[in-house]
Amino acid sequence: MEFSEFRPLDDNLLLDYIKATPSLSSIVGNNFDDLTVKEIGGGNLNYVYIVVGSSGSFVIKQALPYMRCIETWPMTRERAYFEALALKEHGRLCPQNVPKVYHFDRTMSLIGMQYLEPPHIILRKGLIAGVEYPLLAEHISDYMSKTLFYTSLLYHTTLEHKGLVAQFCGNVELCRLTEQVVFSDPYKVSQFNRWTSPYLDCDAEAIREDNTLKLEVAGLKSMFCERAQALIHGDLHTDSIMVTLESTQVIDPEFAFYGPMGYDVGAFIGNLMLAFFAQNGHANEHNDRKIYKKWILRTIEETWNLFHDKFIALWDKHKDGPGEAYLPEIYNNVELQQQVQRKYMNDLFHDTLGFGVAKMIRRILGVAHVEDFESITDPSKRANCERRALELAKKLLKERRKFLSISEVVSTILELEA
Amino acid sequence: MEFSEFRPLDDNLLLDYIKATPSLSSIVGNNFDDLTVKEIGGGNLNYVYIVVGSSGSFVIKQALPYMRCIETWPMTRERAYFEALALKEHGRLCPQNVPKVYHFDRTMSLIGMQYLEPPHIILRKGLIAGVEYPLLAEHISDYMSKTLFYTSLLYHTTLEHKGLVAQFCGNVELCRLTEQVVFSDPYKVSQFNRWTSPYLDCDAEAIREDNTLKLEVAGLKSMFCERAQALIHGDLHTDSIMVTLESTQVIDPEFAFYGPMGYDVGAFIGNLMLAFFAQNGHANEHNDRKIYKKWILRTIEETWNLFHDKFIALWDKHKDGPGEAYLPEIYNNVELQQQVQRKYMNDLFHDTLGFGVAKMIRRILGVAHVEDFESITDPSKRANCERRALELAKKLLKERRKFLSISEVVSTILELEA
Repeated sequence: MEFSEFRPLDDNLLLDYIKATPSLSSIVGNNFDDLTVKEIGGGNLNYVYIVVGSSGSFVIKQALPYMRCIETWPMTRERAYFEALALKEHGRLCPQNVPKVYHFDRTMSLIGMQYLEPPHIILRKGLIAGVEYPLLAEHISDYMSKTLFYTSLLYHTTLEHKGLVAQFCGNVELCRLTEQVVFSDPYKVSQFNRWTSPYLDCDAEAIREDNTLKLEVAGLKSMFCERAQALIHGDLHTDSIMVTLESTQVIDPEFAFYGPMGYDVGAFIGNLMLAFFAQNGHANEHNDRKIYKKWILRTIEETWNLFHDKFIALWDKHKDGPGEAYLPEIYNNVELQQQVQRKYMNDLFHDTLGFGVAKMIRRILGVAHVEDFESITDPSKRANCERRALELAKKLLKERRKFLSISEVVSTILELEA
Repeated sequence: MEFSEFRPLDDNLLLDYIKATPSLSSIVGNNFDDLTVKEIGGGNLNYVYIVVGSSGSFVIKQALPYMRCIETWPMTRERAYFEALALKEHGRLCPQNVPKVYHFDRTMSLIGMQYLEPPHIILRKGLIAGVEYPLLAEHISDYMSKTLFYTSLLYHTTLEHKGLVAQFCGNVELCRLTEQVVFSDPYKVSQFNRWTSPYLDCDAEAIREDNTLKLEVAGLKSMFCERAQALIHGDLHTDSIMVTLESTQVIDPEFAFYGPMGYDVGAFIGNLMLAFFAQNGHANEHNDRKIYKKWILRTIEETWNLFHDKFIALWDKHKDGPGEAYLPEIYNNVELQQQVQRKYMNDLFHDTLGFGVAKMIRRILGVAHVEDFESITDPSKRANCERRALELAKKLLKERRKFLSISEVVSTILELEA
């Protein structure tokens, strides 16, 4: 089916669309009588339909020209194009952790992709429920190391890199949204901001008036806007990951562009930190969540350490490869190679901490909050959890360059909890 | 005249071309009988014709698909397109210091532009001759502050910025050439490298084996490849500037792209430093060049200080303007505004020193040398001059972050000379 212009889907239109699209209809064996179709929405930006037939299933995701939660906030549908591009590219690099794309229609802003069947759930919901995912750190470090390494100048030629950078510059409207909601709104008075009031009123004001903090945020924002280091997911929080005990799948890369690697690694780790600080709000007489909190901290630590080791292993494996950042004729001895890697990873670690905690702050003081905290019904209890998260974020944002390892970060978290 | 494909110019073809091109023929009053045409070549990459008629004059610059000095080194003719774009954009921002573009033909890779009449000469030749240009620092700081400020996120919206970044990503082949000749070749064994041998053999080897230095160079190269800070000229050495005592004109921005500002400021200051260290080689019984060396150092100092002050003045003037890097609602008090500017300029200063001295090293050990040194006929004398320049470069590359002002840099230069 070819539409000459965009039409928002409904159940009937969807069925006609599937029937007329061989790459989709073949998945359900061209058998439309027993199809079940369910719109699961949930997101703020898109229609999402789950289509299940007797011989197969898929998901249809259609980008709408506005955010569903704030319909006056227009959003280019072209984000679907960049989402499809990123899904394909990241899927090629790390097929185990990215759903397959079956179909893309730019006019309709529509992606047909693999349905992640139950018991897959959104990671954030699992973290709120207190479920341990023993392979999470292993899987996500795999995904991050592969997608970031292979799309950086450590593997790309400059020629390849600049071409891809130019292509993803087209996703600027989504970048701008991040700039606003992550790096700007929480640090000024904005109609979109909200927080657990009145408990955090003073905390929010203190952040708006913290010069040192705002200086650091400016540096991170510049890096986000200017530095084309790798093809990042751009929104790698715990709602963008679906999990079972055995599987970890990264979805929703509509914010993808060539940006700083630390933004992705930080998003994931920052959201684990939010999950950690929310646990006291989920504790009850049956479960004090102490063991679970330890698991989260261990997962934070393992994620960084595994990511670090896998990234370095890829670098070593491809040090004579196409990448043009460090030519083997120049970086030609073991000691120098190690110095170079140490510096690169050290900078990336500090970027990770900076972006990670910036994402924490915005989830507590900005427009979009996280269910980890929102599901704590007692506002005073919630505010206490949020305040500790803010304390950590402020400290790390200002002093991150003093931290030499993720275990030092974990120690700081434990001190704040003591 | 419309050519469907590229043809290299010759005198006859040029005349036909001018006759058929109203934007050019009108300049010489459609009078072709008394035209004088002179090809001045000189550059390694292009044909350059000066066309003078009774009622006006212009220059025709045509990009060739290879470098004239090394014909096996292919070079995309599309650089003419980016040169014309940059000339127009920088000319719009700083018309006093950029020649006017009259005509551009993408198929023919041909730019028609203002002829800078005598006594305009290439700045480097003036510096070798020992001519003081009292307005040079004033003019070049004007050019750099305006072209860099107005094409950065301090003035651009993100939307505007990313669109332009994408466009100039197309100039990747020229960026790659820079990566090779500035950031790579001097630090490895390369068939293209040469130096004043045998005098500098050990110096060249020492640089190839200096791990700390190569670590710093890697950081600069990454910044050059990844950071889209502003529309930079990309090749702002003293051959890219034509001067009289009253006029300063910046030409040849074929390497233009969105890159780090410090690369432009550094290119200019680094080349003044080369000019400084070459002076001992130009000294003779009639002129010991001592006064001239002081003028060069004063010009280095004034260039940075004036650039700094003018850049800040533009920032202050437009702090409520379209730029999205530092929103006034966030950076809303005088103290914070000053902190932000201090940090920005401090980082830019260190980038400037880093890029500036990287450009010095490549001019002594790499493929393309400078006439400042090449015109010193006694090789042992030349090597002594070059060695001092290398000493400064090594020191600044490694320790640049300790320098707080340009006057400290000048003091270091004087110590090396003592």
